Amino acid sequence: MRISALACFAVTGLLAAGAWAFRPAPATVSAAAENAAYTPTYTKDGDLIPPTQYREWVYLTTGLDMSYNPKASSSDMSMFDNVFVNPEAYRVFQATGTWPDKTVMLLESRQAQSKGSINKSGHFQSGGVMGLEIHIKDESHFPGKWAFFDVASETKATLIPPAAPCYSCHAEHAAVDTTFVQFYPTLLPVAQKKGTLSASYQKENAAETTK
Amino acid sequence: MRISALACFAVTGLLAAGAWAFRPAPATVSAAAENAAYTPTYTKDGDLIPPTQYREWVYLTTGLDMSYNPKASSSDMSMFDNVFVNPEAYRVFQATGTWPDKTVMLLESRQAQSKGSINKSGHFQSGGVMGLEIHIKDESHFPGKWAFFDVASETKATLIPPAAPCYSCHAEHAAVDTTFVQFYPTLLPVAQKKGTLSASYQKENAAETTK
Repeated sequence: MRISALACFAVTGLLAAGAWAFRPAPATVSAAAENAAYTPTYTKDGDLIPPTQYREWVYLTTGLDMSYNPKASSSDMSMFDNVFVNPEAYRVFQATGTWPDKTVMLLESRQAQSKGSINKSGHFQSGGVMGLEIHIKDESHFPGKWAFFDVASETKATLIPPAAPCYSCHAEHAAVDTTFVQFYPTLLPVAQKKGTLSASYQKENAAETTK
Repeated sequence: MRISALACFAVTGLLAAGAWAFRPAPATVSAAAENAAYTPTYTKDGDLIPPTQYREWVYLTTGLDMSYNPKASSSDMSMFDNVFVNPEAYRVFQATGTWPDKTVMLLESRQAQSKGSINKSGHFQSGGVMGLEIHIKDESHFPGKWAFFDVASETKATLIPPAAPCYSCHAEHAAVDTTFVQFYPTLLPVAQKKGTLSASYQKENAAETTK
């Protein structure tokens, strides 16, 4: 089972390369309009309209073939996972060490290629988006405050049911407020300084360092 | 020799973890001030004052242990390289397929860790910045329009001499205007559509695909 730095479930709904084609910011739109805050909007069926400009949001980290399962993956395909967050939430985190309401994180999966152009070894990101997941904090909308969505298209993200293992895994292991800040190198020091690390993470971390 | 998605020279000036401590955006500063464009400023010795808020710029890509040398690296340490560009330049690229004057790209190196917290395999980014390089287009300042700098501290980046191999490598192999757009998955389709791919890259690419 492939696992990501954002969610703890397999990337099941791989998008065909190029199927999810993000609109570049139109050159005629003012910077102010482009930077307008994203407002979560839901359909009557409970789907979320996903943000399309997340590549201009604040970048948090990238992992390669991360897995929380001791058994190594048998997949031949290597994948990068890039994590982004809306700028408003990032700035609040810098000031407080935790996430405000309406925090929206996106995890984007892209294929890792090794040989191509002049590159001979290691890995670089290649091709279109292969998977896209959202972790959103919307306190008045979700009983557990946070929810995960799987992005199916530019206009539709489907709720991952609260019984899915990603919810319990994040609740049990996340460093800050159900998010895996332990894998976000610019944010972990902020949480340490602000004293916002979860009790469960601190306990796990202490157990790990005394092994 | 370790090589990166931005520059084609070894990361020589590894910063001690944490030595380069970026200032988080102060919570009291207005969004407008935070998003103010970066203006390249040079000292009388020719050093560049590096941007400190590049982690809020637009993310382009991440590579892991990339190398343009057919001989694999013998280093035991795995490193991620993250590339960022100033938002103004990114928006011009989206509209035109090439870079405007005053484009500033940063390549940030961070250690790749495998086991940590609940992660069991693959790699995640861990710890402080291990290296930081700048590729800047400042047409009136540099005879070759572009220059590379090695960041030594928050207030100083040192010019890499134009005779260094990174300049000739980028001139010969870069997909667009001396930059390795072939490794930036959101920008390569834009350059293809706008017809801004360099002749040398197109020739290399054609040779590669007909092998």
